[in-house]
Amino acid sequence: MRWFVSGRDLTLSRIAYVNGQYLPHSAASIHVEDRGYQFSDAVYEVIMFVAGSPLDMEPHLDRLDNSLAELAIIQPMVRSALRRVIMEVVRRNRLQNGIVYLQVSRGVAPRDHAFPSVNVDPALVMTAKRLDFAKIRDLQNRGVGVKTVPEIRWRRPDIKSVSLLGNVLAKESAKIDGAYEAWFIDQAGLVTEGTSTNAWIVTSDDTLITRQLDQAILPGITRAVLFSVAAELALKVKEQAFSIKDVLSAKEAFLTSSTNFVMPVISIDGSPIGRCEPGDVSKKLVDAYWRYVELTTADNAR
Amino acid sequence: MRWFVSGRDLTLSRIAYVNGQYLPHSAASIHVEDRGYQFSDAVYEVIMFVAGSPLDMEPHLDRLDNSLAELAIIQPMVRSALRRVIMEVVRRNRLQNGIVYLQVSRGVAPRDHAFPSVNVDPALVMTAKRLDFAKIRDLQNRGVGVKTVPEIRWRRPDIKSVSLLGNVLAKESAKIDGAYEAWFIDQAGLVTEGTSTNAWIVTSDDTLITRQLDQAILPGITRAVLFSVAAELALKVKEQAFSIKDVLSAKEAFLTSSTNFVMPVISIDGSPIGRCEPGDVSKKLVDAYWRYVELTTADNAR
Repeated sequence: MRWFVSGRDLTLSRIAYVNGQYLPHSAASIHVEDRGYQFSDAVYEVIMFVAGSPLDMEPHLDRLDNSLAELAIIQPMVRSALRRVIMEVVRRNRLQNGIVYLQVSRGVAPRDHAFPSVNVDPALVMTAKRLDFAKIRDLQNRGVGVKTVPEIRWRRPDIKSVSLLGNVLAKESAKIDGAYEAWFIDQAGLVTEGTSTNAWIVTSDDTLITRQLDQAILPGITRAVLFSVAAELALKVKEQAFSIKDVLSAKEAFLTSSTNFVMPVISIDGSPIGRCEPGDVSKKLVDAYWRYVELTTADNAR
Repeated sequence: MRWFVSGRDLTLSRIAYVNGQYLPHSAASIHVEDRGYQFSDAVYEVIMFVAGSPLDMEPHLDRLDNSLAELAIIQPMVRSALRRVIMEVVRRNRLQNGIVYLQVSRGVAPRDHAFPSVNVDPALVMTAKRLDFAKIRDLQNRGVGVKTVPEIRWRRPDIKSVSLLGNVLAKESAKIDGAYEAWFIDQAGLVTEGTSTNAWIVTSDDTLITRQLDQAILPGITRAVLFSVAAELALKVKEQAFSIKDVLSAKEAFLTSSTNFVMPVISIDGSPIGRCEPGDVSKKLVDAYWRYVELTTADNAR
């Protein structure tokens, strides 16, 4: 497949964009009174690139607009200009396969919890990072384990903000246990989502179940795309919250995100799900999603 | 009183400390991949200075140690060195009355939710800001209003982290309504605390009530000091959560923080508390706390 271009050792951004300037990554800095630093008063997006073409850029930028609107942060620039900067970051980093990370904070102002009284310009930062798709493919073939953790995040994870300390602690806890991802369990005993992924199970009648969109989860772009991918495979999707017990009795499970695509989940808290290997439905979805990725980014490249 | 030195127009830090360097405030910057910026993976303290002397510096540094330990962030330097840097920031800013803001993040590392696999140095930033105590006194004489908002923060506000987006939104909401502070109401209908203050009421028998220390609130330094101040005034203190109804039927209410000292609260959601003016017990506590401040910082200055 054409996206299996060989990886470079240098996976990190060489050039970052910071408030109007393209800078060497090492020189990319923001002021200590940027509200993103002192209050996590900032939002972000991660956009995947395949062979230099963006994957679902518009839905990501739509979601960015939503996050900004929810927090009443001014848009740093109009959509067309934002697209141009993103593509310039891609060009300057010679990014083929990888991500552009984009963060918008409310800007720099003397520290005060309330929004600044005077209008300040939002701060816009972008970095790029190469990804090795062969590694993702390998993980997809093997499947991953998840660990459950209590939902400790703030009540608005539907806003893609950098208020991520709960996610950080959960992911670290999963890593310590050798799990690939942590799934948050709410007070009702139901899975909300992963630290940076949406959670899915497959029932015995091959129905896909993922939690309904509410303030408890981020509306994943890959999650949304998978609804149409599933429809093409004639698979039913039900939006409904599920418990750890539901996961353990499920036929299969998987997670989705912009950087994981569809990733089979084969165990939870060390207990096997199904036959403890990527299931047939998951594998179909993995493949169908790769086809979607190839088609979509080939479209863009034309 | 000696701390009423006349204010300067320049309230902001002129010199900031950033990772070993004393820099002009405008040049104080951190890398865009500092985890404080991308994950709110950082903690902070605000230490008050009166006539150039620190107020309760050691309890603040103890709490900083606790916050760092909770998040497994390495201490940026030993206590004695930290004290020296704080005092140097005070000296270089010629700070008399005001605060030193101190933030420690996990450091700079390629973006990944889990802690960096290799040890990275934590980042230490300090800024200084002048405060006009006459303004605080004036507010104390008039009293302030609070607005109640649902508790939407993450479940560990006992850790003094910069994961403050919930606090930011609550404070902004209070400001829009003309209130001085927002008080969070948990799912049981009980007040947890303010966005950057602890909450108190005074009952008809002059007992002070403030929520017990648990993971729902920050262990305020001023809150702790007030226990001894109250004891000296022969006032009983009970640690117990209270509801909005309790506030409305209370004789008085007030809030405490390092930058507010003791601040009378005279209304909640627009409804008066008591006679809608600073009550006798609150006024006694305001005065006794000022005496504590004066004595403590005079001790330090010797």
